[in-house]
Amino acid sequence: MTERTPTSSGFFITREAPIDAANPVPTPSSPPPDILRVAYAELVVTDLAASREFYVDVLGLVVTEEDQDAVYLRTLEEFIHHNLVIRRGPVAALAALSYRVRTPEDLDRAEAFYIELGCRVERRASGFTKGIGDSVRVVDPLGFPYEFFHEVQHVERLTWRYDLYTPGALVRIDHFNQVTPDVPRAVAYMEDLGFRVTEDIQDEAGTTYAAWMRRKPTVHDTALTGGDGPRMHHVAFATHEKHNIIAICDKLGALRMSDVIERGPGRHGVSNAFYLYLRDPDGHRVEIYTQDYYTGDPDNPVVTWDVHDNQRRDWWGNPVVPSWYTDASLVLDLDGNPQPLTTRTDDSELEVTIGADGFSYTRKDDTEHGFKLGAQL
Amino acid sequence: MTERTPTSSGFFITREAPIDAANPVPTPSSPPPDILRVAYAELVVTDLAASREFYVDVLGLVVTEEDQDAVYLRTLEEFIHHNLVIRRGPVAALAALSYRVRTPEDLDRAEAFYIELGCRVERRASGFTKGIGDSVRVVDPLGFPYEFFHEVQHVERLTWRYDLYTPGALVRIDHFNQVTPDVPRAVAYMEDLGFRVTEDIQDEAGTTYAAWMRRKPTVHDTALTGGDGPRMHHVAFATHEKHNIIAICDKLGALRMSDVIERGPGRHGVSNAFYLYLRDPDGHRVEIYTQDYYTGDPDNPVVTWDVHDNQRRDWWGNPVVPSWYTDASLVLDLDGNPQPLTTRTDDSELEVTIGADGFSYTRKDDTEHGFKLGAQL
Amino acid sequence: MTERTPTSSGFFITREAPIDAANPVPTPSSPPPDILRVAYAELVVTDLAASREFYVDVLGLVVTEEDQDAVYLRTLEEFIHHNLVIRRGPVAALAALSYRVRTPEDLDRAEAFYIELGCRVERRASGFTKGIGDSVRVVDPLGFPYEFFHEVQHVERLTWRYDLYTPGALVRIDHFNQVTPDVPRAVAYMEDLGFRVTEDIQDEAGTTYAAWMRRKPTVHDTALTGGDGPRMHHVAFATHEKHNIIAICDKLGALRMSDVIERGPGRHGVSNAFYLYLRDPDGHRVEIYTQDYYTGDPDNPVVTWDVHDNQRRDWWGNPVVPSWYTDASLVLDLDGNPQPLTTRTDDSELEVTIGADGFSYTRKDDTEHGFKLGAQL
Amino acid sequence: MTERTPTSSGFFITREAPIDAANPVPTPSSPPPDILRVAYAELVVTDLAASREFYVDVLGLVVTEEDQDAVYLRTLEEFIHHNLVIRRGPVAALAALSYRVRTPEDLDRAEAFYIELGCRVERRASGFTKGIGDSVRVVDPLGFPYEFFHEVQHVERLTWRYDLYTPGALVRIDHFNQVTPDVPRAVAYMEDLGFRVTEDIQDEAGTTYAAWMRRKPTVHDTALTGGDGPRMHHVAFATHEKHNIIAICDKLGALRMSDVIERGPGRHGVSNAFYLYLRDPDGHRVEIYTQDYYTGDPDNPVVTWDVHDNQRRDWWGNPVVPSWYTDASLVLDLDGNPQPLTTRTDDSELEVTIGADGFSYTRKDDTEHGFKLGAQL
Repeated sequence: MTERTPTSSGFFITREAPIDAANPVPTPSSPPPDILRVAYAELVVTDLAASREFYVDVLGLVVTEEDQDAVYLRTLEEFIHHNLVIRRGPVAALAALSYRVRTPEDLDRAEAFYIELGCRVERRASGFTKGIGDSVRVVDPLGFPYEFFHEVQHVERLTWRYDLYTPGALVRIDHFNQVTPDVPRAVAYMEDLGFRVTEDIQDEAGTTYAAWMRRKPTVHDTALTGGDGPRMHHVAFATHEKHNIIAICDKLGALRMSDVIERGPGRHGVSNAFYLYLRDPDGHRVEIYTQDYYTGDPDNPVVTWDVHDNQRRDWWGNPVVPSWYTDASLVLDLDGNPQPLTTRTDDSELEVTIGADGFSYTRKDDTEHGFKLGAQL
Repeated sequence: MTERTPTSSGFFITREAPIDAANPVPTPSSPPPDILRVAYAELVVTDLAASREFYVDVLGLVVTEEDQDAVYLRTLEEFIHHNLVIRRGPVAALAALSYRVRTPEDLDRAEAFYIELGCRVERRASGFTKGIGDSVRVVDPLGFPYEFFHEVQHVERLTWRYDLYTPGALVRIDHFNQVTPDVPRAVAYMEDLGFRVTEDIQDEAGTTYAAWMRRKPTVHDTALTGGDGPRMHHVAFATHEKHNIIAICDKLGALRMSDVIERGPGRHGVSNAFYLYLRDPDGHRVEIYTQDYYTGDPDNPVVTWDVHDNQRRDWWGNPVVPSWYTDASLVLDLDGNPQPLTTRTDDSELEVTIGADGFSYTRKDDTEHGFKLGAQL
Repeated sequence: MTERTPTSSGFFITREAPIDAANPVPTPSSPPPDILRVAYAELVVTDLAASREFYVDVLGLVVTEEDQDAVYLRTLEEFIHHNLVIRRGPVAALAALSYRVRTPEDLDRAEAFYIELGCRVERRASGFTKGIGDSVRVVDPLGFPYEFFHEVQHVERLTWRYDLYTPGALVRIDHFNQVTPDVPRAVAYMEDLGFRVTEDIQDEAGTTYAAWMRRKPTVHDTALTGGDGPRMHHVAFATHEKHNIIAICDKLGALRMSDVIERGPGRHGVSNAFYLYLRDPDGHRVEIYTQDYYTGDPDNPVVTWDVHDNQRRDWWGNPVVPSWYTDASLVLDLDGNPQPLTTRTDDSELEVTIGADGFSYTRKDDTEHGFKLGAQL
Repeated sequence: MTERTPTSSGFFITREAPIDAANPVPTPSSPPPDILRVAYAELVVTDLAASREFYVDVLGLVVTEEDQDAVYLRTLEEFIHHNLVIRRGPVAALAALSYRVRTPEDLDRAEAFYIELGCRVERRASGFTKGIGDSVRVVDPLGFPYEFFHEVQHVERLTWRYDLYTPGALVRIDHFNQVTPDVPRAVAYMEDLGFRVTEDIQDEAGTTYAAWMRRKPTVHDTALTGGDGPRMHHVAFATHEKHNIIAICDKLGALRMSDVIERGPGRHGVSNAFYLYLRDPDGHRVEIYTQDYYTGDPDNPVVTWDVHDNQRRDWWGNPVVPSWYTDASLVLDLDGNPQPLTTRTDDSELEVTIGADGFSYTRKDDTEHGFKLGAQL
């Protein structure tokens, strides 16, 4: 049993992620690739012009390159070719979650790792998207289209180009978030792939609702959210400060697009970041995120939140809208076909925390003011 | 008929407030006092220690003076004795909304003005609260306990005392907000008292749901909100920047008091200010507010919002919680007895905008994404 | 003798501005016009395209209207036609400092007031610049070209148009600053014109170096700075927050225009505002300014700073560059000819505070760290 | 010859740091320890109470533990015992720059690495300071007292404890900065120790004036600044946002301590961070720093600045005060004796950029406005 230490902030910390998978993916004998960080997502969109307007004109991502079928976009502080590809297609879906690895040899490791896992693996010396060199794509054991690459075209890092900044400037890609039915199983596999847990949400019975996992020393490169999957919950981009996120909301209001704001802005309990969730023209969810904390030490304390703690998802106790729990993007296999979904059989965070069947608290074992909308659903 | 000019932001502007009262308060022949600004509110609280903790330890208001029965509090940039009095009493209620007038002679004008209106008027040379000199208290035609004073004890303006600032420092009192059943009637009376309308919320049939009125050149010194009244909706204090308001939310989370956050933070449509609504230990509502605009020119454009515009109350379209519409503080007469309520007979903003009977839009004549919680109530 | 009260912040406050003019301008028997606020400055520039680039492309002012000879610019929260006119001309100079008055009748008062003072007065029913109606221009007793107007073309207030905001958005015109040799004389005349002193800088011998005077309830609509005059020291525009000012600096760096930053950013002692001084292509000085305090009560405490207090001009003790003291714009008479300068005979703030002949302190009667550049000049 | 690519921001980027050491430290055959990050500095101070007041009461660092001789301080987001030790001693000096390593075995590597370099090496199983376990201290080839440790006492990470935040809250230790006479020699040795160059300052003749080197994926864990050494230039702590740094300046003004502000606040060219430099009661320099960029990819573009680029040290072109170039703290050997200094023989950045012998530019091959104080020294 892992030792749990209560904190003065109402959650627990442990030295090791207390997650055990009942039905684990086998651990390969092949070593995993050395993943540097989240690099880019490729989204299939049904109306490329509408999506370009959303990501470029509204959110201010920089166009590195574009053609009739796709737009390659990057954040202001990025020096690799892109952090997001939006590609025209028949069904809105995620085509790939792509990570950069440390060396060209890590691609061989990725290939061997997934072959040993029995996954479908494709490798293309010239890369799968513009700007990317030798790379590996797989459908991973959770059903997600993962990509690994090292070679990439360098482009100018626009960090100092303040003449190009908008009030809501997006400066980095921060993380992915994936919906998967069995979170402990997913966590154990991702740990085999070299990821580390930084935070998670559990209940007293031991059910795990979500976990945050990192390679770069932030709270996450990807998160695993319990639900019918595989689906993509969101892609997140970082701003420098909180007012940048507020500026995005203000601009959406001015454009009479405020209904694309799904949730927030707010302060996360998990990660401590300031956040906003938007929905793009196809319903793909985008998070805007700023100011989590350093996690790079190997004994970084793992934070475990009680699913009934009303401040876990929003530190101010503001309610999570149901669509945030229920909606997510389809993901494609390597042939471009949507992956079938597996239903979550563990308890659902939506059901145990909202409405008549759930309950949540601000102060454990205390009654509370019931102003929040969540109390009325 | 007043000319209404549509703007590129989705609301209308007029040169005159298009408000006609069906059942007006008579206009006195006596000139009104020259009111400078909102000065302070006096709240009766049932647990003085709990309220002191809320306003001083949590919100950081400065104690000018205190005794067993009352605490006199001010904001950091104030040089008059107090902006808020919390006084121990049997029933949580508002005891007075107090305005400062330009000269001692304005007190005579206030006295004559309200006597002519047939209101109960009391005058006390030594003032009704500590720190305040010669002053007039009335129960006004809307049933509110109003106070006027000029003489006041000066205290040190702590503007430059950054060693005393907290991350969420409150620097000014900004405005009151009063609930009253007949908004046009209330507006016309307040115009007689010398106030000017800066913004209002109406519907196409001409029903007025709320109006914002000012003496100092900001969006308001007080607002009139339609509902059963007289009741006090809230008192508002200003911060310098938006991050100060976020800091208050973060601190409330840290103190496990996030359930006192009733609504926000968000950006108002009306006033364009960034806002947050809290409830004190007695349920009195406090707004934290920053960055509205200059309104001091006599032809300042009046902004009229459509009650069905989903961005009027929150520019980001985030839902207003029902309690914000329904709850408000009792107000006392000059003997300290709660005033009886008169029911609003005009349409209720809550009912026409939330739920099955109401509807609201982000873009007029367009469907929209229904992510927001308001869509599900 | 006015009573001076020391504060915990190191300066003094008084109830009345302790300024006596040895050689006063006579007080007219005609009442002054009721001035609302600073409205706009008209600057003559030698290269209109260069100035347009500076004010529009770099600083983001909004073009209301333009022709071959002039550009009419406004801030984002303004509803009158313009806050700045840049007009092509042979010599870089100030053509007018313009104030808005409360009523059309105040123009008659302005006319009578200045005629009684023996000033040259011109009145033009159609106004002197586009967008402005009936107006009065004078060369005032200090030699400055002052304008008064009430009628003005309304334009859309862009407050809510966040899609138009830049990271350094200018939202209001805040004040002028004028250089004049005899500050007490200038203050007394401006008091006759209806202005009130909010702060000043003096020395123990009673020399006054500068004074801040207001109509609207901020620290100033104009300031009077001691020096050879009449000259215009600067025009100031306001941003919402401090990061907006930093964004302007960052953008100037990105454009390789950082050498137009003359002083700052910093925190003023006087006014407590966060500030930045730029020089436009003709050398006209522009201040960017945010967050001073409310001054609208008639007994607003007047703050008097010691000229040797090193925190008076910059609260952080950062040095004032000599050009900020010595450089200022010529001002034109009503025929467009530069006004001759009168030399200041009182002590110069530059000389008494910088270099071998001056001295300044952070803590009175204490030695200090001498890191600042000012210590080495 | 390394290929240099000009950028649109006025500096060059290279794929490899173009630094060659004429007189290199030999590269050990022993592998270096795997250093995680900057962990803490130990400063000897002559007046412990005065230093405690500075770091705790003014800057708000958290006291983990203290006794009569030392105070152990940490930032709000730290989970290891301390980020700064201030220890009473006879001479103000740096006692240790301490890094955390990945595993206990890395201490053996550190020991072997430095023994092979012929350095004095000490190891203490119980650590050299409270809270630290098994550790290695060395005097490195540049003369600096370096420490390595892995075992450390965990303390509560106060990230979520917003009730403890001040307006200028310090949330992380960010980096050290060391003065050394031969920068290329120092860089080559630090590369052997596993550090990577992210940025540097050179001139056209190839002289290197300073270099920034990192382990964690920020711009640096330490920087090497050319000058007489070994000396410590500064220790840097991070805030979340820019306004936090401004709040520190404002508080220093309120405390009449503004003369401890040596330089800034400003925006660095190098690193793009927003900065402030303070001097503690013993003259030890402390930087407050926020918002540099991600550097963790192995091919992270190295930025090379021209020493004559006036925006390299301050992106706004504001002058660097001479003391910032000339002053630095003594460093101690393992017996607590100050290390002797070696004089820099390469050109000095101060001399080549300030005053009659130097020159700098905002736009290469263009004249510029000479407002800045640096122009007058």
